[in-house]
Amino acid sequence: MHMRNIATHGPRILEVRITPIAIIDPPLLNAAGLHAPYALRTVMEIVTDDGISGISEIPGNAAINEALASAGDVIRGMDVFQLHPIRRALEQRYGRDATGDRGLTPWDQRKLVHIFSAVEVACMDIIGKVTNRPVVDLLGGKMRDAVPFAAYLFYKPEGAGGELAFGTDPAATGWAAGRQAAAMDPAGIVRQAESMCRHFGFKSIKLKAGVFEPQQETDAIVALHEAFGDDKPLRIDPNGVWCMDTALHYGRLLKPHIEYLEDPVRGQADMAALRQALGIPLATNMCTTSFEELPSSIRQHSEDIILSDHHFWGGLTASMHLAAICKTFGRELSMHSNSHLGISLAAMVHLGAALPDFHHALDTHYPWQSEEIIQGGRLRFEDGAVAVPTGPGLGVELDREALEKLHQHYLSCGLTKRDDEIEMQKIEPGWTFKPVRY
Amino acid sequence: MHMRNIATHGPRILEVRITPIAIIDPPLLNAAGLHAPYALRTVMEIVTDDGISGISEIPGNAAINEALASAGDVIRGMDVFQLHPIRRALEQRYGRDATGDRGLTPWDQRKLVHIFSAVEVACMDIIGKVTNRPVVDLLGGKMRDAVPFAAYLFYKPEGAGGELAFGTDPAATGWAAGRQAAAMDPAGIVRQAESMCRHFGFKSIKLKAGVFEPQQETDAIVALHEAFGDDKPLRIDPNGVWCMDTALHYGRLLKPHIEYLEDPVRGQADMAALRQALGIPLATNMCTTSFEELPSSIRQHSEDIILSDHHFWGGLTASMHLAAICKTFGRELSMHSNSHLGISLAAMVHLGAALPDFHHALDTHYPWQSEEIIQGGRLRFEDGAVAVPTGPGLGVELDREALEKLHQHYLSCGLTKRDDEIEMQKIEPGWTFKPVRY
Repeated sequence: MHMRNIATHGPRILEVRITPIAIIDPPLLNAAGLHAPYALRTVMEIVTDDGISGISEIPGNAAINEALASAGDVIRGMDVFQLHPIRRALEQRYGRDATGDRGLTPWDQRKLVHIFSAVEVACMDIIGKVTNRPVVDLLGGKMRDAVPFAAYLFYKPEGAGGELAFGTDPAATGWAAGRQAAAMDPAGIVRQAESMCRHFGFKSIKLKAGVFEPQQETDAIVALHEAFGDDKPLRIDPNGVWCMDTALHYGRLLKPHIEYLEDPVRGQADMAALRQALGIPLATNMCTTSFEELPSSIRQHSEDIILSDHHFWGGLTASMHLAAICKTFGRELSMHSNSHLGISLAAMVHLGAALPDFHHALDTHYPWQSEEIIQGGRLRFEDGAVAVPTGPGLGVELDREALEKLHQHYLSCGLTKRDDEIEMQKIEPGWTFKPVRY
Repeated sequence: MHMRNIATHGPRILEVRITPIAIIDPPLLNAAGLHAPYALRTVMEIVTDDGISGISEIPGNAAINEALASAGDVIRGMDVFQLHPIRRALEQRYGRDATGDRGLTPWDQRKLVHIFSAVEVACMDIIGKVTNRPVVDLLGGKMRDAVPFAAYLFYKPEGAGGELAFGTDPAATGWAAGRQAAAMDPAGIVRQAESMCRHFGFKSIKLKAGVFEPQQETDAIVALHEAFGDDKPLRIDPNGVWCMDTALHYGRLLKPHIEYLEDPVRGQADMAALRQALGIPLATNMCTTSFEELPSSIRQHSEDIILSDHHFWGGLTASMHLAAICKTFGRELSMHSNSHLGISLAAMVHLGAALPDFHHALDTHYPWQSEEIIQGGRLRFEDGAVAVPTGPGLGVELDREALEKLHQHYLSCGLTKRDDEIEMQKIEPGWTFKPVRY
C-alpha cells in the first residue's frame, strides 16, 4: 500500500475543566443598564491524554456553564484536531442555536456558539503546542505583528467595581486610578479618552452610547472630534435603542465626525433603510450575529461592517470563514468585545493578526479590567496595539493561583448571570431596560 | 515577559521545482472538442530549508508554467505556514485574476488561482509533514474515512490516448482495455457505465454531454436510468452549449431521471431563469467560478450546487471558505475535475473528507488515466470511494522515475496547452468550437 500510516491519531481529550470566575468591573453605563461590580467569565481547560493543556475564556453565564459541565462527556476521547467532528458532536448534544436565542441585550445569550468557541479555542491552543506554532499560524499565518484596538469609552458614575468599590487602593491597578473618575457628560468623556489614549496609545476611539439623550451623546462625539481632530477615527454604539427618526436625525449630525455608526437601530430592515438614507457605514454585533442571519443582511445590505466576536460566532476558524464571506460580499470584518481577560484577548489578537484584510481597530474592554489569570500578568498595549504572542498555541498560560482567587470571587459575589438592569436599579430605582428608548 | 518565544519561525521555502508532464489521455469528446492523446499537468515541488518537500499538481498550461517559473523568486525564504502573506505576495507579483480571464472553455484559464493553488497545496503537504498530521486535519478534521466519487462517462470513438493510441498493449493499464471501446450512442454509454461501475464501484454517474444532439444525450440518461434504476443518481453536463429553449425542453425530459443538471446554459442570468422554470437543482463550474462571482450567483440563485475545483478556487483553505459560504447561503458544494493524477486526487480526497456537509459524490477523471507519478502506483477506489490517506501531509510521495518519464512525454508530445478544438479537427475537419451549439 502506498500510504504511510504514521499519524494514526493526535492528542485525545482526557479532561475538561470549567472554572467560573468573577472579575472586578467598573460601573459602566450602557443601553441595558449598568455593569455589576463583577463581570463573569468562564475558563475552560482541556487536558489531553499526553498531558498537554489548552485554555479558553468565554462570557460567564450559569446556564451556559451548566451545559459546559457536560461538554466533557461529549468530547472526551476525541482527537483535538477533529474540530468538525467535535462541533458535530456538540451540535447533536446541545442542539443548534435558534436565531431568537440571542436575546435583546447588547450581549449574546446563545449556547452552542459559546460552548463550541470555548472548546475550539482550547483545542487550537493544544494544536499550537503540539505543532509548536502560534495559533495565528493555524489560521493561515500572520499578516501583521501587532493588532490595533480602539479606546472604548463609557459613561460612568464615579467609582470602580468589585473590591475597589469598597475601598481598596485603586492605584494598585494602574489605569484603575483614572477609572474612578465620573464621565457623565461630553467633557468627562473627553477626559476619559485622553487618559485612555495616553496610557494605551489607542489610535481609534469608540463611545458606548444609548445611555443618555442622543443629543448629549452626539455632543460627546463632536467634543471628541474637536479634541483629537481627524487623527483618531471615532465610532459610536447606541446598542439599538434609537428609533428610526432619532437615528436619522442624529446620524446626519454624526456623519461628519465618525468612521462608522454601530447598531443605531434594531433589525436588519431598519438598519438597511437607515444606511440607505444616511450614506454612512453601519456596523453591527446585534442585528447580524450568526451565519443564519447573513443571507438577509447581504440581501438588504443592512450593514457594512460585521463585528465578529469569536465567542458568539463559534470560534476562530468560523470567524475566518466570516471574514471570507465579508470579503466576498463587499463587507468588512472587525471585532466586538465584552469585559474580558487575557485569554480572550490573546485569542482575539491571533485572529486579528490572521485576517487577510484589516480595516478597523478592534474593540476591547480590557483596559477597564485590572486583574489577570495568565502568567506574567496583563498583556500590554503599545501604540494602541497588542503584539501577537509568539509562543506556541495562544502563547499565554494559566496562573492557577490567580484563577483560584477569581473563582473564589465568583463563589462569593453571588452573581450567576449578567443583569445590568438590576445593577442600574440600585442607583436609579425603577429603571427598566427598554429595547428602544429614544 | 509572559510570552514564550519558541516557534520563532517555521520551515522556510528554499527551492521551488516545476515539472510539466504529459499524461496519456483517451479521445474523450466534450463540448469543446476532443481530448488530445496527452493531457498536460504541472507538478510543483517545494523544498524547505530543513529538507522537507511538499508537492502539488495543477492543470498544465505553458502560460501558467511560465508564471510559475518565477513563483520561486516570490516565495523563496517565506515560512510555509504564512499562507496569507504568501498569497498576498503572489497577488502583488501576478495581479489578481479578472473574472473574464476564465475563458469560455469548460476548463479554467486564470493564472493566480492556479499558481496559489499549486503553492498552497505543496505548503499544506509540508505543514502536514512538519506537524505529522494528514492534510485533512489541517482543514478542521475528518468527517469521513473515504470520499465518494462518481463514474464520469464520456462519449468517445474507439481507441486510447498517448502511446496506447499507437499500439501499446492496453491491457497493461487496467481499465484501459475497457476504455478502447467506442461509446457514441446511448447503448455505448450504458456499457461504459457498467464497466466503470463494475471496476470502481461508483454509486453515482455523470455524463459529459454537449457533444451530440441533446435528444441523443437525453436518451443516454434515460437508458442509464433504465439500466441502473434509482440506485445510482445521474447527472449530465452539457458545458453550457445549450440555448435556453433547448435547455428548457430537455431539462423537462431529464427532470425525472437526474440528481442535478450541470451548466446547461451560459451565464448566471440564464441559469437563474432556467432553474426557476425547471425546478431542478443546477450545478456549475462555468457560470460561478470565483469568489467575485458569488454575490450575483447568490442574489439570482443561479445555481444550487457549486462545483469547486481547488485548482480554480485558489487552494484547499479557500475551498473550505467556499463550503462555508455555500452552507450559509443554502447552497451545496461538490467538486469538479479535469484529467489528473494522484497528487490532485489526494488533495481532493483530503478536502472532501474535511467538508462538514457532503451532498454529492465528487467528479473525477482519474479512471481515464492509466499512469501515476506517486510511489506505490495508482490510488484505488473501493465501492466508488477513495480512502483518506493517513500519512502526514497529502500522504503521497513523488515517484521521481515516473515523473521524469512523464516529463519526457511532455517534452516530446509537442503540446503547450489544452486545445480540444484542434484535436477534434483531426477527426472532423473544419469543426469549430461554439460556446452555444444546440
